[in-house]
Amino acid sequence: MAETTERVLQQTGAARSAAAVLARSSQADRDRGLRAYAGTLSAQRREILAANAADLAAADSAAGGAPLATALRQRLKLDAAKLDELIAGLEAVQAMPDPLGRETLATQLDDGLILRRLTCPIGVVGVIFESRPDALVQIAGLALKSGNALVLKGGSEAEFSNRALHAALASALTATGFPVGALALIETRAEVAALLQATAHVDLLIPRGSNALVRAIQHGTTIPILGHAEGICHVYVDQAANLEQALRIACDSKTQYPAACNAAETLLVHRAVAGRFVPGLVSALGAAGVEVRADQAARAFAGEELRLASDADFATEHGDLVVSLRVVEDLDQALAHIARFGSRHTEAIVTEHAAAWERFRSEVDAAGVFRNASTRFADGYRYGFGAEVGIATGKLHPRGPVGIEGLVTYKYVLEGEGHVVADYSGPAARRFQHRSLPLQDG
Amino acid sequence: MAETTERVLQQTGAARSAAAVLARSSQADRDRGLRAYAGTLSAQRREILAANAADLAAADSAAGGAPLATALRQRLKLDAAKLDELIAGLEAVQAMPDPLGRETLATQLDDGLILRRLTCPIGVVGVIFESRPDALVQIAGLALKSGNALVLKGGSEAEFSNRALHAALASALTATGFPVGALALIETRAEVAALLQATAHVDLLIPRGSNALVRAIQHGTTIPILGHAEGICHVYVDQAANLEQALRIACDSKTQYPAACNAAETLLVHRAVAGRFVPGLVSALGAAGVEVRADQAARAFAGEELRLASDADFATEHGDLVVSLRVVEDLDQALAHIARFGSRHTEAIVTEHAAAWERFRSEVDAAGVFRNASTRFADGYRYGFGAEVGIATGKLHPRGPVGIEGLVTYKYVLEGEGHVVADYSGPAARRFQHRSLPLQDG
Repeated sequence: MAETTERVLQQTGAARSAAAVLARSSQADRDRGLRAYAGTLSAQRREILAANAADLAAADSAAGGAPLATALRQRLKLDAAKLDELIAGLEAVQAMPDPLGRETLATQLDDGLILRRLTCPIGVVGVIFESRPDALVQIAGLALKSGNALVLKGGSEAEFSNRALHAALASALTATGFPVGALALIETRAEVAALLQATAHVDLLIPRGSNALVRAIQHGTTIPILGHAEGICHVYVDQAANLEQALRIACDSKTQYPAACNAAETLLVHRAVAGRFVPGLVSALGAAGVEVRADQAARAFAGEELRLASDADFATEHGDLVVSLRVVEDLDQALAHIARFGSRHTEAIVTEHAAAWERFRSEVDAAGVFRNASTRFADGYRYGFGAEVGIATGKLHPRGPVGIEGLVTYKYVLEGEGHVVADYSGPAARRFQHRSLPLQDG
Repeated sequence: MAETTERVLQQTGAARSAAAVLARSSQADRDRGLRAYAGTLSAQRREILAANAADLAAADSAAGGAPLATALRQRLKLDAAKLDELIAGLEAVQAMPDPLGRETLATQLDDGLILRRLTCPIGVVGVIFESRPDALVQIAGLALKSGNALVLKGGSEAEFSNRALHAALASALTATGFPVGALALIETRAEVAALLQATAHVDLLIPRGSNALVRAIQHGTTIPILGHAEGICHVYVDQAANLEQALRIACDSKTQYPAACNAAETLLVHRAVAGRFVPGLVSALGAAGVEVRADQAARAFAGEELRLASDADFATEHGDLVVSLRVVEDLDQALAHIARFGSRHTEAIVTEHAAAWERFRSEVDAAGVFRNASTRFADGYRYGFGAEVGIATGKLHPRGPVGIEGLVTYKYVLEGEGHVVADYSGPAARRFQHRSLPLQDG
């Protein structure tokens, strides 16, 4: 245990040193590193696929001869096409504009005293992700582009694949002159426990995985965390909804990928349209294999045979083909329901009524607030951010789907000519000018 | 105790409800509220000054007849001039542009499917501040402008003043139609303890005060905190420094207000200029009443009678007329010292050498990185942010001096025409356009 702690402290310490090198590296150098990432993945294709085959075999044999559940196997499996996608993804990240050194504020405080706010890397980022080994490559690409050192912990089912991918990327780092400490791989739970305690060397943790994983990490560290514990998203069908749209949106939000955090868990329907809308909704959901749990009011429209929805249902992220249904008296009741049960992830209203949308948009407290669109659009790729490192439901920056922008922070850079504060106090005090300057870029 | 918890839960619950009202309020309404804040302060001037006189009398008598330390008394005391300043400050905040509803991203995802990122309030903010009662008014003004509900805890020495100020502002809220729950005042330590546990109702805590206060709050809650525990700032005098500037900057950084978090605690001097610079520096600091603690190398230049600086000194925020002094071999050693002992607040280099500045600027990991200027400029007012709600040394937004911008976050707002994600997958998938739109404002 003490040995593990010591080893992880060495790794995170090396990551901290590497972060300083990355922080002063040029865009050209980081882009060269990204092209080397793509090149070694391509060159070591055979080794990577062999390692992946070993993971698949181990998983199948652990499953006692029975083949793994298809979804898990699909997530775990790498093949030539997936590797090509990963390589294309790295090339796309390489082609993105430099996220660092962008000026987001420039003010002349006084003659010769210029304040600038410049984007800069966060530093050392720890990412704990589940089975998909492709995530390792995607995250490593975003981190190098944004000048951050990484400590990665992948799923144990993908142990051989992760080692092969990590070895390929590490050799690319070395070949392009970056310290290999910029990309560390850890593997055991004990190492994760040590990572959570490495407060001096780790600036941000990104847990990607189950609620249980995120919660465990939230409670085990004082390092800031980018993540979300739950996705309890709602679709509210207003009295002024286009009901044909409402049906499509409700079904897509629930069924298009029920395990995702941006899938809807509860549908709220205004009483004025419940008679026309609920029976068709329930039969469409039933046809898609969805179990509907309805409150008393909804059962009056949908059929008394439906299981009664309890408060516990409204508070649950089913992550499966189960949905709660409630008939509300008005927009106020819908807003109150969302405020009570929502997890601040993504909330949608279906309405043609501008005033209802205005209220919903201002009052709903969530990272995503949608009108006439499926909650499933809440995603970095669909938002146009390229790859996504995680999704955040906290109030502070970054929130929502987090792309490369979430991997940069900023610093205030002040340049003077010997300016001292004493000159700005007392009876003969100089006055600040606070003149905004045109931004150089960004 | 259970009663206290119950009462604070009621207050924070009311703040949560008030936050929803504030989130949908118009700029005109919030500005009307700010003018009412200014008006009632002016109208209730007599009551406020009487309450403040009672606090001063209580403090003097608690000090056993001896008048309070001048600095503390100055911070506690309100007078007509200070009230006028507070009123002018509220009027200035009222005149600021609306920080809410600003578009910071706009992308057409597809025909009829528009994504926007709009600034919005954080929600319920708890602020724990020390003796200055003026802080109550300044924070209340920024919070109302930015649509946030507040729970305030002031210093117990200012109990009567805080009550009088709070009563005045609360009556202004009522008079302009805002829920009085938007501005709650709590007073006891037990209430603070209950506030730290009110995770469902409080989105952000801002402790303003001593390191001990900030640390205690960091360890007592899982609510996100905006703050900083320490300000260990450095001034590094490079071999290419203008030594006249260096002397002014070093003295200002240390002596202009030594109790402030942005005062310098350690001066680092390049060996190449130590012989010419250190003796004059030490005598100037001595003349200003500063105790200098020097490392062995510095004592060789400054005199062996100086107390030897230990690592403990380098790790201490003196907050007083004490400074540590070290002679370093080169920029690398200066950067390593800052990385080891700095608190990521503000770091300054004095140099005429562009390459040294470039390295210092990229490699120093701090919210403020200055060239040829005093660390004391790290301040919301001096940066041109107007009032300051706090200062943050964390890596995530907001960091540095935090003005009204730190009291807003953003949400992603998506408007469609019945769009569903299923249409974007499978063989006949629609393609996303991801076309950037001109921003409406901001």
